[in-house]
Amino acid sequence: MHVNFYAGGTLDRTAPLRRDDAHFQALLAEPVTRVVAVWRDRNLIRTDPEPAAIWLTEPAAVAEAVSAARTVALLGRGDGCPYVAVDLSELDDPTVLAGIDRAEDFIGLRDVSAAMNREEAALLAYAKGLMFWHGRHLFCGACGAPTHVEASGHVRRCTNPDCAVQHFPRTDPAVIMLVVQGDRCLLGRNRRFPFKLYSALAGFVEPGESLEEAVIREVLEEAGVHVGGVRYHSSQPWPFPGSIMLGFHAEGISEEIVIEDDELLDAQWFTRDQLSRIDGQDMRLPRSDAIARQLVDAWLRGDVAF
Amino acid sequence: MHVNFYAGGTLDRTAPLRRDDAHFQALLAEPVTRVVAVWRDRNLIRTDPEPAAIWLTEPAAVAEAVSAARTVALLGRGDGCPYVAVDLSELDDPTVLAGIDRAEDFIGLRDVSAAMNREEAALLAYAKGLMFWHGRHLFCGACGAPTHVEASGHVRRCTNPDCAVQHFPRTDPAVIMLVVQGDRCLLGRNRRFPFKLYSALAGFVEPGESLEEAVIREVLEEAGVHVGGVRYHSSQPWPFPGSIMLGFHAEGISEEIVIEDDELLDAQWFTRDQLSRIDGQDMRLPRSDAIARQLVDAWLRGDVAF
Repeated sequence: MHVNFYAGGTLDRTAPLRRDDAHFQALLAEPVTRVVAVWRDRNLIRTDPEPAAIWLTEPAAVAEAVSAARTVALLGRGDGCPYVAVDLSELDDPTVLAGIDRAEDFIGLRDVSAAMNREEAALLAYAKGLMFWHGRHLFCGACGAPTHVEASGHVRRCTNPDCAVQHFPRTDPAVIMLVVQGDRCLLGRNRRFPFKLYSALAGFVEPGESLEEAVIREVLEEAGVHVGGVRYHSSQPWPFPGSIMLGFHAEGISEEIVIEDDELLDAQWFTRDQLSRIDGQDMRLPRSDAIARQLVDAWLRGDVAF
Repeated sequence: MHVNFYAGGTLDRTAPLRRDDAHFQALLAEPVTRVVAVWRDRNLIRTDPEPAAIWLTEPAAVAEAVSAARTVALLGRGDGCPYVAVDLSELDDPTVLAGIDRAEDFIGLRDVSAAMNREEAALLAYAKGLMFWHGRHLFCGACGAPTHVEASGHVRRCTNPDCAVQHFPRTDPAVIMLVVQGDRCLLGRNRRFPFKLYSALAGFVEPGESLEEAVIREVLEEAGVHVGGVRYHSSQPWPFPGSIMLGFHAEGISEEIVIEDDELLDAQWFTRDQLSRIDGQDMRLPRSDAIARQLVDAWLRGDVAF
């Protein structure tokens, strides 16, 4: 069972307690409670001496943040401390709050996460993903009325009594697959990728298709390559903003690459030998905190056979 | 690679063509186009002599249905025929339309699918799932303004020019896992299940967790059993109304069952011998079109070891 970055934390999500409002209110007043601040697409992180989460813990700071937040959600309990996320996105300047010293301390998690403690990175990713979902569900999609928060921040319900639909947090399943054929694997360079990064192909799962069908469809759409066998490897939470990556190895059963998709600038077959000689100048592989790199490394180690 | 019911069809989703409006309009006028009608949570299905989809194909019927529909979406192309879904939910009586003879022909897919052609069942499930998503996204969750349809029915965009957020079809990943321990497996009876049905435990994946973490968390929450190894088996589209089931076998590493969850009425360890003697009177197992049954059968065959 392969555990990817952003997973494998020890947080107890305490899901059965979420419907107990009194529990949540009491917990906000616990002296050991740690508040995880999210501002727009950023987390509160210190970078010196190395990247680490900044929790709000002082009672005054906690009370101010909870009161200023658009949404407050119970994340769970770890090491004896309750963790609570607050979404401060409606503040133009979050430094008006106690405990938040500099606007620059709100940082894109992906920019620093590779150097972070895995457990903290997982917790910040969870907070960020949940708050993004709230921001996209302030109104009811069925009737347009405002929604309000229930279940300690894990449900939004429509305030229109004739509708009253419950909306649950959304996670978009996406498949990511390393297509292999003998001693070669297929990597693509996405239009949105930074300089010379080649990675595994990926795409969202559509309604009414299995993961395996999504793998086959996406490889054909993006690179024109036909896929036979498909083998699950592992999964990775990827709340950037709201996905889970489902990693596969897939057997390429055709060779010619045809890029018809707008997403890819290039795709090529690479041998193990070529990948072992990459120097970072002409091309780069994904960072080791991305499941894509884990798929490549597993194949390089010889863990994959069709 | 195990292929479950509702998957494995040969439909080409023609995703790269969706942004071409002229293509979609032209296709609606093709004489071989088949319209898949969805009304509220039901599909248009004939049951005599056996369950099969009713397509609208007459040009007049197609035009009427498209014009009356709240949403029209391109499903793809199969056997040379374009397939188009229409959501007729806003009509109180869909039989006012040409080609729809009886309101009773709208049937819950799950009630008859086990006796249907797999390919047709997959197509109807896809149409139903996509239309459910549309009905829940008529308004923008970020700002409350109405949304309109783009990309041949695969995107909804907010009509408020200051927002203009795109909303994409939603599929909720859910894990479903057969916990095994030596010669026994863990099955539960859900409060919502019909009479005496025992099945694998299941639950939705939450933001910021891996599939494997969701398996471990759900088994502990629902049955109080601790899980060690987790092994992926297969996946199944489950648009009832909008899930994909991700099937696992999991190794139970504790024995005592503690039901704290509201969802389960009962959970028990069953031996292979007990399951082989089930007569349908005292308990039932899931139908073979459900991935839960495939997980049980794989274990009964001895395909699973930890």
